[in-house]
Parts: sequence; C-alpha cells; structure tokens
Amino acid sequence: MPETSRSTALDTVLEFHRAWTSGDIDAAMDRVADDVVCRAPGEDLTGKDAYREYLAGFAPALTGLAEAATFAQEDRVALFYYPQTATTTTAPAAECFTIRDARIVESVLVFDRLSFGPPSGE
Amino acid sequence: MPETSRSTALDTVLEFHRAWTSGDIDAAMDRVADDVVCRAPGEDLTGKDAYREYLAGFAPALTGLAEAATFAQEDRVALFYYPQTATTTTAPAAECFTIRDARIVESVLVFDRLSFGPPSGE
Repeated sequence: MPETSRSTALDTVLEFHRAWTSGDIDAAMDRVADDVVCRAPGEDLTGKDAYREYLAGFAPALTGLAEAATFAQEDRVALFYYPQTATTTTAPAAECFTIRDARIVESVLVFDRLSFGPPSGE
Repeated sequence: MPETSRSTALDTVLEFHRAWTSGDIDAAMDRVADDVVCRAPGEDLTGKDAYREYLAGFAPALTGLAEAATFAQEDRVALFYYPQTATTTTAPAAECFTIRDARIVESVLVFDRLSFGPPSGE
C-alpha cells in the first residue's frame, strides 16, 4: 500500500528543515529528490546540485531561527519561519513543499530579498 | 457553542482573498478585524485602515491570479499564489492568516519586492 501519508510528508520536510538550518546540508539533501525544482526569489533551481549549492550558500548566514507555522495536507507541507541573520530577525520566509516517495520534489520558496540583503546603495 | 472551525477559518480567508483580488476592497475588509496586524515586506501594518490602504494600493496592479496551494489548520490558513502584474506572472506570494471569530486578526504576507517592482536603478 504505497502512499504518501500526511505524517510522512511532514516528517520528510521537518527532517530536511532541521538539518539544513542546523548546517547539516548532507542530511538535508537525503530528503530531496534528484530532479527537485526549487522556485526561489528571482531564480529557479533545477536539480539537487543547484539546490544544495543554494542552501549551502545561505546556511552559514543563519544566526537563529524562529518557527511561525507549519501546515501539512496530503503530499504538501508549508512552513512559515523567521530565518535570523545579521541583517534581520523579523523577516519571514515561506516554503511550500511537494513530497513524493518521502522525498522533496518541489519547493516554492518565498522571501523578500530586500529584507535579507544589505541595501546595495540608496 | 462558539468556536472557529476549520471550514469557517478557510471560508473567511477565501472570501477575503477572492474579494480583494477581484478589486472589491470593501467586501474584503468585511472579513478583517479592526485591530488586524499585517506583517508585510519591510513594514508592519497595524489596524484595518492601514491594511485597507495597502491592499487598495496593490489591487489595481493585478492583471491575473494563479492559485498554487491552500492549507487550513484550526484557526490558521495559508495561501500560496502567483499575483500576476505587468512586471511578473511567476513570482509567488504566501500569506499565513490567523482567524478569530470569523475575522482575520493577523496576516504574515511574504513576497519578494524585487520581483514585483521595476528596478529603481542599477
């Protein structure tokens, strides 16, 4: 009876989320499908290598994390959280994950780049 | 037996969402509490008047809308959608609503301002 139960999809996402936000990119990538697509602000990341590089680039900037809300419905999971960096502790991020066979196959990642990056000049 | 059921919270949000995205700001505001707080990119909007002004400012720029995902859990509802404007049709927005007594009391609104606004100069 293969199926993606709600708890399995949620488990997959929470394991992924806890791993990368604690700096363990390898463990996070164990929960990601090879052909993952991540729709990130300003760019689409296609494939596991591109997604890994993106997360590995941001993870070191994290100084803390505050969770805001978690939703799970069938094969989809949504997270709202506040990634804390030297620039901001109050700008939220939202992610909508699609899970298949206990792996993340799609992520729609939403955050405001202006809130996280230092202004590049007035 | 006063309670906020899942369907009531979802109904409240969908009515709000359909109203403002079709330009009916007054109908949308009927679903919003007077002391609403909306955490929007770069600014917190406090109170119904500030929220109304914000939505009324953006709504005329909408040329279309594509829904991506809807989640409902107890008193919270999350929406992911693509607000289509002259600038973009592929940049997502995410909102996490908290509902009390069939009114929106909080919204965490997440989108990438850079994807929606024309660059103000290189």
